[in-house]
Formats: sequence, structure tokens, C-alpha cells
Amino acid sequence: MAGEFKRDQNYITTRITADGRDGYPVEPGRYRLVIARACPWANRAAIVRRLLGLEDVLSMGIAGPVHDERSWSFDLDPGGKDPVLGIERLQEAFFKRDPEYPRGITVPAIVDIPTGRVVTNDFAQITLDLETEWTAHHREGAPDLCPERLRDEIDEVAVKVFGVNNGVYKCGFASTQEAYEQAYRELWERLDWFEDRLKSQRYLVGDTITEADVRLFPSLARFDAVYHGHFKCNRQKLIEMPALWAYTRDLFQTPGFGDTIDFGQIKEHYYVVHRVVNPSGIVPLGPDVSGWLTPHGREQLGGRPFGDGTPPGPPPPAERVPDITSRG
Amino acid sequence: MAGEFKRDQNYITTRITADGRDGYPVEPGRYRLVIARACPWANRAAIVRRLLGLEDVLSMGIAGPVHDERSWSFDLDPGGKDPVLGIERLQEAFFKRDPEYPRGITVPAIVDIPTGRVVTNDFAQITLDLETEWTAHHREGAPDLCPERLRDEIDEVAVKVFGVNNGVYKCGFASTQEAYEQAYRELWERLDWFEDRLKSQRYLVGDTITEADVRLFPSLARFDAVYHGHFKCNRQKLIEMPALWAYTRDLFQTPGFGDTIDFGQIKEHYYVVHRVVNPSGIVPLGPDVSGWLTPHGREQLGGRPFGDGTPPGPPPPAERVPDITSRG
Repeated sequence: MAGEFKRDQNYITTRITADGRDGYPVEPGRYRLVIARACPWANRAAIVRRLLGLEDVLSMGIAGPVHDERSWSFDLDPGGKDPVLGIERLQEAFFKRDPEYPRGITVPAIVDIPTGRVVTNDFAQITLDLETEWTAHHREGAPDLCPERLRDEIDEVAVKVFGVNNGVYKCGFASTQEAYEQAYRELWERLDWFEDRLKSQRYLVGDTITEADVRLFPSLARFDAVYHGHFKCNRQKLIEMPALWAYTRDLFQTPGFGDTIDFGQIKEHYYVVHRVVNPSGIVPLGPDVSGWLTPHGREQLGGRPFGDGTPPGPPPPAERVPDITSRG
Repeated sequence: MAGEFKRDQNYITTRITADGRDGYPVEPGRYRLVIARACPWANRAAIVRRLLGLEDVLSMGIAGPVHDERSWSFDLDPGGKDPVLGIERLQEAFFKRDPEYPRGITVPAIVDIPTGRVVTNDFAQITLDLETEWTAHHREGAPDLCPERLRDEIDEVAVKVFGVNNGVYKCGFASTQEAYEQAYRELWERLDWFEDRLKSQRYLVGDTITEADVRLFPSLARFDAVYHGHFKCNRQKLIEMPALWAYTRDLFQTPGFGDTIDFGQIKEHYYVVHRVVNPSGIVPLGPDVSGWLTPHGREQLGGRPFGDGTPPGPPPPAERVPDITSRG
């Protein structure tokens, strides 16, 4: 449709695997995951790394919330350089891999530390590989986020989740009224479907946290802070959708989810970077986030968050996000 | 403060009075009130005209929601001309009054039909004069919207009301982060004050509807539809403020208030005209307005909406707004 936002879904698809068949074997300390707190696609990888306890095995660099047309940069780090990779802009790692790299510089990206080259920025494959290829290095008690017997259902639900993940962008970046209205209707049809599903079950697939929840959570966490107003996804706020709001709070309060969320960086990214949507670059002070730590009551639905496993411990001090009471 | 939005508050202050001391005596059929459904300042005049039953005495022209830099225009009317004044743009009536008229062409404006000249666009005085100078033509059972004994309190509250009416614009049109944040804090301090006041009393001053309510309602009616997102007044939606939301619904469901509200025109105006805030001109489909007709429970607080008077009848057919179920 004219005016429709189309996401470039071509990524560097090299994989880091247990058998190293693409030339990049799983190896503790060899790779660096680069994320930005603002980015929902990167948020997935940060959550999975936390849930599986890979912090000591796969280090993490954090790009700042604001970037220019060409690249995310490490302006949060001392001297504006990632302390492990020694680069100012993530672009440098992409160009080391391919000096003519023609597409967007995106997070999450995993960089091979010895060569400084990006191995992959294929966000959907990254979490699957952390779950299934890095098993030898998972922490004691790590959950199985992608159980074989649920794999088909997870894949099926994931298609609908992508409709939300990408649907909010289709609303916000539509350039015609008609394209916006179609995107809005599709988004809300999808959200209504999730609202309905989550009325009677605690998690999206099965009775434990899975990859499906990891994929939906980043979009819900950003919904009221940015998508509702900035992207005109404004039929309701998340907090007006009882099941979705309780589900999101439940996950937010689960170790590994809420401790990856920085509302300040999320808002700064969207409102400052997208001048085509928000020419002033002014970042809203709202919404009030005081409700995020209130009881969610989802335990009543049963479910075992980590299955036979356990929750992760707290994040490493260098990766702590601001306390919720200071955010928003 | 740098970046602060400043409203030009100089208006044409000629008054239409019972004694005609400014050359414009109250006279049935002689004047035309020009409003736009979108404009909150004009909304006041439309409400007061309805409550007092002045429809047959003071006719009303309705400019369209979208205007250019210079003027509101009558593009909703057949042939794009106001059927009584015979003009396409409200500007023409201002220029007939003063060919060099240097300020904004604003609604509400009252035009002298015989000469085609604007008499006044002084919105604050217009409603007061309809209430106190046009009394000979008020309908049977018209309420006293500005009782003498409450006048001081109404004036006092009106200052705070203006802090909301204008405060939302100060948030939306601030051009620096600092000016926005100050405007946001002032606005919410004010809204919290009203929330608190309205917890225990049905109306703002006394126990009946007064000019103070007429002034606050237009801003509240527009809050979730435009101010929350478009103007970044996003600490909460109106519907998250229990007393204010019930108060607004109470008034909305009272004849003379809700029947002046056209959510479609309101959204179209703000989102299309303010390209500096919304470059795409795309109009959001939200918010859901299905809650506006739900019970408000405010009768429990006592109060007599029209005092010793009665509610107005329905609006004239030509002035009916779309049904709420088709709006939003």
C-alpha cells in the first residue's frame, strides 16, 4: 500500500553455533553482544542473556539512546568508546566485516572481539541460538525457553507477536492516512487477540516463560511510553487492557525482564531520533510509571515462570538500570 | 523563559450590551456568532448559547476544522460560504472592521450581520455578556451561570482554569525541553488541584453549573483526544483521573455540553493544522470514546445542575454533531 512502512529484514545471518559450522563456534569470552536499552529488538537478546545467566560468558556493550542517521554510538561509555571493542560507533564493527556494508547499522549485534567484526545482527536467530547453541554455558537452573515439544506453537505465536513488534512502527511511520489506518486496525486486532489469550493463561505458550513471551514483552514495555502517543497507537493505553497490563507487570517484576528496561533511554531514543515524527525533539515527562510494581495477581492462573529451573540473580553492577521510582 | 509559548491575549474588546454603549446593543437576529467545533475557546460560547437558549436570537456560523496560516474558513458550508455572512473566510469580517487588522483571526467571533464587521473576538467577555447582557432573551428556565454572590469565587477559580486551558498549549508549543518541563509541571499541579476539589463537590463553584464549569469543560473534553499525545500532556489520560473523568462525563451527558462536541473535528484540527508538531498531518484513530456515555455517579454528591432552572432542549437540526458512537 502507498505510504506503508516497510522494514528491511535482511540481516547478516552468520550463526554462532556449538559446532562452529559458520566459522564462529560458541566460546566463552570471545564475543560481545551490543545492544541499546531503547531498542525492542535488542531488548530480547538482553533478556535471554539474563534468563540463561550468560553474563560472564558473553559480555555486553550498551550503545546510547540517541544515534544519527548512520549508526548507534557508545556515548554512554567513558571517552565515548566501548571499553572492550575500543570503537565509538557500532558502524565500525560492521565495516570491519564488510567495508561496503549497505544496510542499516542495527542492534542487537554480536561482535567477534579478536577481529572486531560483526558476526550477526539477525535478531530473531540470536535469541534462538543463545537458547539452543549455548546450552553448555547456561547457568545452573536456567529455564528452557524453547522446549522442543512447544516449538511449533511458539513459532506460530511468534508470527502474531511480530505483528505487534513491527505493527507499532507501521502505525508510526505510515506516510498516508490510509496506510496508518490499516496498520492501526491490524495492530489492535492483534492486541485484542493477545488480550483474549492472556485472560486465561499466565504465559503465551505452555505454562512457563518461553521465547514467545520474550518477544512480546519489549513492545508492551514500550507501549505507553512511546507507541501510544509518538506512534499514534492510541485506541487504548496498555494499562487499559487488563490482561495484557497484568501480564506485562508480571514479567516486568520477574528477574531478567524489568531489570533490562530503562524508560528514560527508551523515551529519549524515540522522541529525539525520529525528528520526522517529533520535530522539536522534546521528550515527554509522562507517563507516570508508578503502577509497574503493583501486584498483578497472575499467580492465580497457575504457571511456573521458570519451569523446573530458577530465576536468575541480580544483574552485574555495570548493567543495572535506574530504579523505577527514578524513571519515566 | 526561553522557548515558552506566549499567547497573544489582545482581542477586539468592543462589547454588545443591553444599553448599547459601544454602539452595539443587544438585538435579536442582528449578530452572528462564529465558532469552530475544534476550538476550545469557541466551545465556551457555543455551550453558553445552548444553556441560555439563545439559538433563535443569536445565529451561529461554524468554520471548518482545518484552516491555513491566516484564517478560519467556511468550507463545511455549501459553496464554502457562510450562508448568512456570505464570506468564505472569517478574515473578511475582521478586515471589514479594520483593513489593517494585525493579529490572529480567532474564534469565537461575533459579527454584526448588517455591516459584516466583527464586533468582538474577546472570548472571555463574550460568555459573560451572553450571561448578563442578553438576559431579556434568555429562554424560560435558563440557569444563572454567573450568580452575583458567586462572582468572586468564579473569578478566582477561572484563573486556575485558564492555567489548564492555556497550559496544554504551553506544553505542546514549548520549543525547549526546559520550557516544556516547566509547563508540564504547572499543568499537572493545576489538574491535581481540580481533581482534589471535584472529589467532594459536583461542580466547581456552588452547587450548580456556572461559568467556571463552562470554561474547564472544553479543555477536559479535548484532553485524551489531543492534549495527551499531541501536546505531550501525558502523565495520565483524563480517564485515569477518577473525579475529573466522572465530572467531565457528567457535563458531557448534560444537554448543552456534549451536544457541542465533535471529536472528529477536534482531532482533525489539531493534527492537521499543527504541522510543526505533526509533520505528516495524519490524524490518529484513537482514543476509544465508548466510555463517554457510561454512568458517572456524580448525582451522589448532590448539586442541582440548573439550579431553579431547567435543561435546554435539543440543538437545532443544523447544529447537531455526529453521534458519539460514530466519533473518535
